[in-house]
Amino acid sequence: MFDFIENGSITSVNGFKAAGIHCGLKKKKTDLALIVSESPATAAGTFTLNKVVAAPLQVSKKIIANGNDVKAVLVNSGNANACTGPEGYQDALDTQSYCAGKLGIAQEEVLVSSTGVIGVKIDVDKLKSGIDSITEKLSVNGGSEAAEAIMTTDLKPKQFAIKVKLSQGEITIGSICKGSGMIMPNMATMLAFIGTDAKIEKELLQKLLSKAVNNSFNKVSVDGDTSTNDMVILMANGTSEIEITEMGNDTEIFYNALLELTKNMAKAIAADGEGATKLITINVTKAKTEEDANIIAKALANSPLVKTAIHGSDANWGRIISTAGASGVDIDPAKVQIAFGDHVVLEPGYKVTLDEEIAKEILVKDEVTINLVLNDGEAASTWWTCDFSTDYIKINASYRS
Amino acid sequence: MFDFIENGSITSVNGFKAAGIHCGLKKKKTDLALIVSESPATAAGTFTLNKVVAAPLQVSKKIIANGNDVKAVLVNSGNANACTGPEGYQDALDTQSYCAGKLGIAQEEVLVSSTGVIGVKIDVDKLKSGIDSITEKLSVNGGSEAAEAIMTTDLKPKQFAIKVKLSQGEITIGSICKGSGMIMPNMATMLAFIGTDAKIEKELLQKLLSKAVNNSFNKVSVDGDTSTNDMVILMANGTSEIEITEMGNDTEIFYNALLELTKNMAKAIAADGEGATKLITINVTKAKTEEDANIIAKALANSPLVKTAIHGSDANWGRIISTAGASGVDIDPAKVQIAFGDHVVLEPGYKVTLDEEIAKEILVKDEVTINLVLNDGEAASTWWTCDFSTDYIKINASYRS
Repeated sequence: MFDFIENGSITSVNGFKAAGIHCGLKKKKTDLALIVSESPATAAGTFTLNKVVAAPLQVSKKIIANGNDVKAVLVNSGNANACTGPEGYQDALDTQSYCAGKLGIAQEEVLVSSTGVIGVKIDVDKLKSGIDSITEKLSVNGGSEAAEAIMTTDLKPKQFAIKVKLSQGEITIGSICKGSGMIMPNMATMLAFIGTDAKIEKELLQKLLSKAVNNSFNKVSVDGDTSTNDMVILMANGTSEIEITEMGNDTEIFYNALLELTKNMAKAIAADGEGATKLITINVTKAKTEEDANIIAKALANSPLVKTAIHGSDANWGRIISTAGASGVDIDPAKVQIAFGDHVVLEPGYKVTLDEEIAKEILVKDEVTINLVLNDGEAASTWWTCDFSTDYIKINASYRS
Repeated sequence: MFDFIENGSITSVNGFKAAGIHCGLKKKKTDLALIVSESPATAAGTFTLNKVVAAPLQVSKKIIANGNDVKAVLVNSGNANACTGPEGYQDALDTQSYCAGKLGIAQEEVLVSSTGVIGVKIDVDKLKSGIDSITEKLSVNGGSEAAEAIMTTDLKPKQFAIKVKLSQGEITIGSICKGSGMIMPNMATMLAFIGTDAKIEKELLQKLLSKAVNNSFNKVSVDGDTSTNDMVILMANGTSEIEITEMGNDTEIFYNALLELTKNMAKAIAADGEGATKLITINVTKAKTEEDANIIAKALANSPLVKTAIHGSDANWGRIISTAGASGVDIDPAKVQIAFGDHVVLEPGYKVTLDEEIAKEILVKDEVTINLVLNDGEAASTWWTCDFSTDYIKINASYRS
């Protein structure tokens, strides 16, 4: 039903242009991205639950809440414009207004977004001169540049696009995102911008996005921290003239493709977590309720002891069962089965079946799966995280974010 | 009203003997401790809330619940006897029974406790031959040896004793404890054994202990993990013949001394957290409710981003306000004041008053205090934690605990 496009990005979608440049907020690396939809796009968004909300996020959240169509997203890295008070809010509005002027569109058609250091006034002059040049550089191949310009401590730019066959024809969904540190559900310092050429009415678009985010980005953790600036934006510009409606048969196909795309982004963010050397997938199954499964999977994804053990390729199932037991969920440890990949190391009744050599072979790989079976019901949850390395400490003891 | 005894330990208390020896569970270091009260002691205890409960803890919990007096505590390090099933439970009973036989006391007068690796059968023969020799070595100066023998990745033995002047005379409270990794409230891999020569009836003893634990050990975090084996035991053997009663004037004095002692233990555990280079005290004040203050202080004590920033002596107040905002408490970030020690770095209204040089001088020290003032009410909470260093990762990527 759907296929990933090789090296696809948000500009793989009809009607979207983008660019990424250096405007001077960072010393050398690019730090300003612009995404533009040629025709007005219905827009949906999910935002950080942190009570400390960055200025640009307040501005963009209002636009999504008002429900008007949008045409552009301006994103800078290098400065979060968070904890900057009324002045910072004014800076976000000025930048938004200047960008709208340059593009010849209405101010409320421009979403703004920032990531970087907290509590430092943003340099609006640099942003404005950056806007002067970036608006000249917009291109249908600019997705990659934009993906690079929104990075902070990310090591790799992240972008994906997917082609989806629907009953009336083919549509595309494309995206760029960034993650790295401070990644924890309900949106971390995670920015994701997704575009599609399908035509979808606002309410349905928001519903599909919220559900996909809940089952992808909200199940990723790098370090348990949640940032002040996170947002995921989905824009549908309708240029394909293929409409997806609540009642239509294509809705589920579209949702599944969107979920696949957001899952790929979420996993790419976990794999590129600060200092990460491994992507860890955590499957908690046969739980009493989905909430139970989710609480335990989240506890495992956030446990420094589990994450350091996997970093050391140590088949330390004791830390896994102990973390599950400490999660607050009423588990019966005597029923628990634990496997690394397909190697079962603990059978119910505390029967240890661990073979250190087989486990080692599995645990030294770049991708490790922990399977925790509670044998207490039928509910399940999957989370993604990364291992915890000395580089995480080095990055965060020196980088002021 | 009270004074710490220099190099005091549990054997500073009249009627308590102790010893620590090597019985072979660890390669070289001492791994077995025994504490004995010559006369029967009223005993109170608090235990891990982990659903995965180690065998010896199940045995000891039952004794405390039954309410009978106790005369001995046998503690081994090197093996937690956790996740070892019915066989592990039988091993704990056998060890308890053997120790009681050697001491010539009833089985239910012996508390047992273990710490170390999870999921490995404990070597009962080694324990028994250890009991043979340790019972011969009990001494009124043996507290320090016992404190060493219960260590796992602790770098320093931990022991404290305090003399308390009461209306009827002087009593002593003495203690040994261990901590290090997996330290998180509601008892982490934290063992603490406290003795006093005061005479206190069981119900009151439990009440005083629970309250003191709640305001000390339960406000310490090293890495947010909670272990399967934690316990705090308080034994009152009454040899001073000074009685403390619910209605008496001395109860508050005794409680304050006990709290001071447990706070000292808690801080020593945080300062000696795995890989720790700094003790961090977190004061959250002017919160709406004590629960709010507690949630935020706990979130800060557990935040890898805050703990790595302090490790790097980085005055990163942005991470502090962001973590508070992400804690789930409804704070108003515009009202927040943040100080490192007495240097205020953020005034309400996002006014940054940070002086990097002054902050650096404060942050490079071994003890750092974070003061977060919410200006939203009158409630407060203090937590203790340590910084997060590359050594934490190194220790936990290789040590199977």
